[in-house]
Amino acid sequence: MLRIAVLGFGRIGRMHASNIAAHPQAALAGVFDAHEAAADEVAERLGVRKFPSVAAVFASSEVDAVLIATSTPTHADLVEQAVAAGKPVLCEKPIDLSFARVEACAQKIAGAATPVMLGFVRRFDAGHRAVRDAVHAGAIGDLHQVVITSRDPGMAPTAYIEASGGIFRDMTIHDFDMARFVLGEEPTEVTAVGSRLVDPELMARYEDWDTVSVVLKAPSGRQCIINNSRRAVFGYDQRVEAFGSAGMAISENRRPHMMTIHGATATGSGAPLLNFFIDRYAEAFAAEIGAFVDAIEKGWPAEVGFEDGRRALLLAEAAIRAVAEGRTVRTSEIG
Amino acid sequence: MLRIAVLGFGRIGRMHASNIAAHPQAALAGVFDAHEAAADEVAERLGVRKFPSVAAVFASSEVDAVLIATSTPTHADLVEQAVAAGKPVLCEKPIDLSFARVEACAQKIAGAATPVMLGFVRRFDAGHRAVRDAVHAGAIGDLHQVVITSRDPGMAPTAYIEASGGIFRDMTIHDFDMARFVLGEEPTEVTAVGSRLVDPELMARYEDWDTVSVVLKAPSGRQCIINNSRRAVFGYDQRVEAFGSAGMAISENRRPHMMTIHGATATGSGAPLLNFFIDRYAEAFAAEIGAFVDAIEKGWPAEVGFEDGRRALLLAEAAIRAVAEGRTVRTSEIG
Amino acid sequence: MLRIAVLGFGRIGRMHASNIAAHPQAALAGVFDAHEAAADEVAERLGVRKFPSVAAVFASSEVDAVLIATSTPTHADLVEQAVAAGKPVLCEKPIDLSFARVEACAQKIAGAATPVMLGFVRRFDAGHRAVRDAVHAGAIGDLHQVVITSRDPGMAPTAYIEASGGIFRDMTIHDFDMARFVLGEEPTEVTAVGSRLVDPELMARYEDWDTVSVVLKAPSGRQCIINNSRRAVFGYDQRVEAFGSAGMAISENRRPHMMTIHGATATGSGAPLLNFFIDRYAEAFAAEIGAFVDAIEKGWPAEVGFEDGRRALLLAEAAIRAVAEGRTVRTSEIG
Amino acid sequence: MLRIAVLGFGRIGRMHASNIAAHPQAALAGVFDAHEAAADEVAERLGVRKFPSVAAVFASSEVDAVLIATSTPTHADLVEQAVAAGKPVLCEKPIDLSFARVEACAQKIAGAATPVMLGFVRRFDAGHRAVRDAVHAGAIGDLHQVVITSRDPGMAPTAYIEASGGIFRDMTIHDFDMARFVLGEEPTEVTAVGSRLVDPELMARYEDWDTVSVVLKAPSGRQCIINNSRRAVFGYDQRVEAFGSAGMAISENRRPHMMTIHGATATGSGAPLLNFFIDRYAEAFAAEIGAFVDAIEKGWPAEVGFEDGRRALLLAEAAIRAVAEGRTVRTSEIG
Repeated sequence: MLRIAVLGFGRIGRMHASNIAAHPQAALAGVFDAHEAAADEVAERLGVRKFPSVAAVFASSEVDAVLIATSTPTHADLVEQAVAAGKPVLCEKPIDLSFARVEACAQKIAGAATPVMLGFVRRFDAGHRAVRDAVHAGAIGDLHQVVITSRDPGMAPTAYIEASGGIFRDMTIHDFDMARFVLGEEPTEVTAVGSRLVDPELMARYEDWDTVSVVLKAPSGRQCIINNSRRAVFGYDQRVEAFGSAGMAISENRRPHMMTIHGATATGSGAPLLNFFIDRYAEAFAAEIGAFVDAIEKGWPAEVGFEDGRRALLLAEAAIRAVAEGRTVRTSEIG
Repeated sequence: MLRIAVLGFGRIGRMHASNIAAHPQAALAGVFDAHEAAADEVAERLGVRKFPSVAAVFASSEVDAVLIATSTPTHADLVEQAVAAGKPVLCEKPIDLSFARVEACAQKIAGAATPVMLGFVRRFDAGHRAVRDAVHAGAIGDLHQVVITSRDPGMAPTAYIEASGGIFRDMTIHDFDMARFVLGEEPTEVTAVGSRLVDPELMARYEDWDTVSVVLKAPSGRQCIINNSRRAVFGYDQRVEAFGSAGMAISENRRPHMMTIHGATATGSGAPLLNFFIDRYAEAFAAEIGAFVDAIEKGWPAEVGFEDGRRALLLAEAAIRAVAEGRTVRTSEIG
Repeated sequence: MLRIAVLGFGRIGRMHASNIAAHPQAALAGVFDAHEAAADEVAERLGVRKFPSVAAVFASSEVDAVLIATSTPTHADLVEQAVAAGKPVLCEKPIDLSFARVEACAQKIAGAATPVMLGFVRRFDAGHRAVRDAVHAGAIGDLHQVVITSRDPGMAPTAYIEASGGIFRDMTIHDFDMARFVLGEEPTEVTAVGSRLVDPELMARYEDWDTVSVVLKAPSGRQCIINNSRRAVFGYDQRVEAFGSAGMAISENRRPHMMTIHGATATGSGAPLLNFFIDRYAEAFAAEIGAFVDAIEKGWPAEVGFEDGRRALLLAEAAIRAVAEGRTVRTSEIG
Repeated sequence: MLRIAVLGFGRIGRMHASNIAAHPQAALAGVFDAHEAAADEVAERLGVRKFPSVAAVFASSEVDAVLIATSTPTHADLVEQAVAAGKPVLCEKPIDLSFARVEACAQKIAGAATPVMLGFVRRFDAGHRAVRDAVHAGAIGDLHQVVITSRDPGMAPTAYIEASGGIFRDMTIHDFDMARFVLGEEPTEVTAVGSRLVDPELMARYEDWDTVSVVLKAPSGRQCIINNSRRAVFGYDQRVEAFGSAGMAISENRRPHMMTIHGATATGSGAPLLNFFIDRYAEAFAAEIGAFVDAIEKGWPAEVGFEDGRRALLLAEAAIRAVAEGRTVRTSEIG
């Protein structure tokens, strides 16, 4: 049994804790949360051990690995501490909003053998992964274009937007990772367009965008188109299309069930899409824990490593500059 | 050029005339309709030759073949006359509502070399035919079950119902033919259930049913389920499913276009289905003319012959008795 | 916390145990299995309490309710014992293969206040339930026809077939329950056709059928068509269609993910269907436990009661006779 | 009857001629083709009048309107001549490959009352039009993003590529028009990326691209993403998606029929997509003739005018520059 502690016991931390508990080779070693009251009460009700501090977690001989689900600004520090303590770590994305901080963290943990895995959960979605697998197996021949549609079901709260680092670092970053996952090659040119259409006032206040289109290009000429919106009223719009010389693979949207209605004015009407990531990627989150456990127990390399986190952020930085300057930005200009 | 005359110049006759005119190897030799006024006016406007009588059509050296689209009670007589005149004939279904009359007609034309083709147009639908072809090519292995869904978009006018011979002879007859087409074997046992749900009063008046379920069984044990309704508010519901030892083929419904809407309460809502047979089977009607022309010009056997019309009616007779007596009726009990 | 003991710790019992453990208001009180060795080992590995006998389960003050997942011949006895002990019970279907035994059991437990729930899990499938809800909410107007397609992914082992009671009592019984669930009215006439197409020799040996079509009719005239096969190579074919005066609702098949491939010879090719009931109805099994817990904790009536089990078996008996005698059998002829 | 002459009697001209002949308010006045032999033979076989010269067409009192289906370099001249002769004209796209020539043509015909219609046939596709109509009717709220997927089924012949003016002027130009049609607003910023992946050698020879991604932005902030490929092995990939504040409308691909196959390794496999524009847009070409006839007979403005042709070419010029310079190009930089 691999004993995993969860740092951060909010909504996402609790979901991870539940997946850890359900995994046949893993056990929940306990939790830590900086905000005592609410999380404590939940932990007590569930009979989960509470650690008094982060230090106590890293010092405990009853903790084999940690999962970081705290707020973004703490991620890099905690990753460094976990590596220093020799505890394998699965960290929620992003590593940090500052590319410089990520670079510093990378240097600090360089050379350490402790597994570090990044929580790009969409890589573990059965449909998206099947697209990647089809590409890698040659089922669509040589890959030419990837099209990623990724729209949230609703605008995030203002406090979230304020701390998010902007749409490219917060939301598109998942798609940058998916692009790399499917392309199988590092994109080196980034072109991006941003608009304020969902909540123009809010976006203007934070110099952010709520509607963006990005085109990535890799040295081979392969292209990836990403389109994002902060609000799709019909649910969480998550599609990945790979187009190649011998065919096309598409991971389509998912709905809570497959019931459709035929009526006098419309046919084939299904339910709205699954509403957000906790529902849409429920199986993927469980599979992510499985991959983390495998990486540690079998000594396999983590399927999504620190470098993947750094690369995705690098593309975000390039996209931000591309919008600002109205031109294609090469990743070599960033780092 | 094969010169084809059309007998009966109502809505269906005109559609056939138009398809004949558009066929590269066929020409419209002229039309005859018993109801002078309306049809004449159309014929004149379109510059189509009018024949003064059926006799004139059959006597004309400028008529190579005839298409019968007159009212049902005239079909058997006209088929006999056409065969007597040596004019190949494509006759709209059914041959006659009386099984005895059909048997008599069969005897009368027996031995004649003149091609007689029946208008079971659904055999020429690309989707239904692809199901049949998949079955015959072994793509689904040994055939086990056929499921035919066939629902009209709306209740026919009372006058039509009155003269229709009942749902089994008028509507299910198409499905009996489709069952034979896909099964590739003669069904010999007929079980059927009838209900009055769409217009109970009208149905009771004519001792008819508007909602029926039929199960056919062939000597090999293969089954075919047919379900009919006189009114599907979402359009003309026409599906054929073939299930076998190695897979399943389904001919799905068709809509006027492939636009779908995703909204806050429903996703994937498409337009209602194509409304009725003139629209749904438009390409099939054209292909039917093509098959008729091929049968004559190339000396091929008609794809749907007189015997197919007789067989379908025989199954209708068995179904009527099965409902009446609440038991499985063997076709050998009918004829 | 509702403490539930599981009787029978085979594959299905273990799945139920896992769902009970994961339910926030329920806990696994322990398990009993007649076959010591294998089950014991699993129980020990999972740290689950083992009861030495059924009697010990019913006597325990630490057991609030029981779930029966033992072999079919023990069901009726265990239900009677559970009711005698005042332990609410969720029993896997069927109650018994003998209609007489079910009637006797019904009499024995008549009047007892102890909740008895039957495991017709498909009622808890989100898609099938959405069809039922659409019907009951009037979304498709007056219901006219229900079409249930239900095909297993592969022929069951010979030992299973031998003890199954035949396809109608073992497999179609789920569809009889679904028919009643969607119809909202008791079917009173049963017509059925059986064939031996998947494994003719095996079926002949047990006087069973592997391919059946059933038509049910209710007093209102509403019809329900059921079609079954013991083997669909493309997976577990589970569809429910409700057709009415104002529209149609369909619960379509489910696949493990929504990835499709477009290639030179085929487009839209998805993965095979989810393979069998443990996968296809995974969420439904969890929801079933939820309904059982709610029934007990909130004093609600069980959503699927003993009478539902009896009614489904009654329809199976009628279907068996309908095939044997080639006629429509009224349920009043059975019981 | 509106008598329409067809200039250019190749494959496309013949298709237009056939649609004109089939239109109830139009008649084929005759044809002219510069290449005598082949076209003449067809015209004779079909009994179509041949004009000896373009001048004869424009001079004829038996020609009410002309359709230009000649080679691209002749379009602008013929449009000018048609306008000078007062003959309403439907001209295949593009007007010319040179933006300067288009501007000159625009000046020459400025002020003339003669209707000039451009053959952007996709506007008449029922599905694409339904998307546009949904947008304009407010069915998806405020429009935010348009995504156009447009991939040819196979690389065009070298001679065609050589004379095409490049992918943006030849192929994307249809999508630029569709973007304007759906956006309902002039895009003013063009960003584009081009790759050589399908036939790198051929593309390099003509300094062309076979795989492109374009992002358009309008003053309101609305975005349109276009992706093109010269070869999709699964058929002619033609999709239009409009995403807005209240929903999404998608015009999906079309296949020759709706038959799907379920097998042991794949489910839902349909036929490849309709192969190319003559098939995919067959109904749209007929509707285009209908719109042309209506524009003339009812005095309605042409649904697609000269300015639409000019605007689409302007976007193509901007895209070419955007790729060359790796930056967003404003349309005001072009003209």
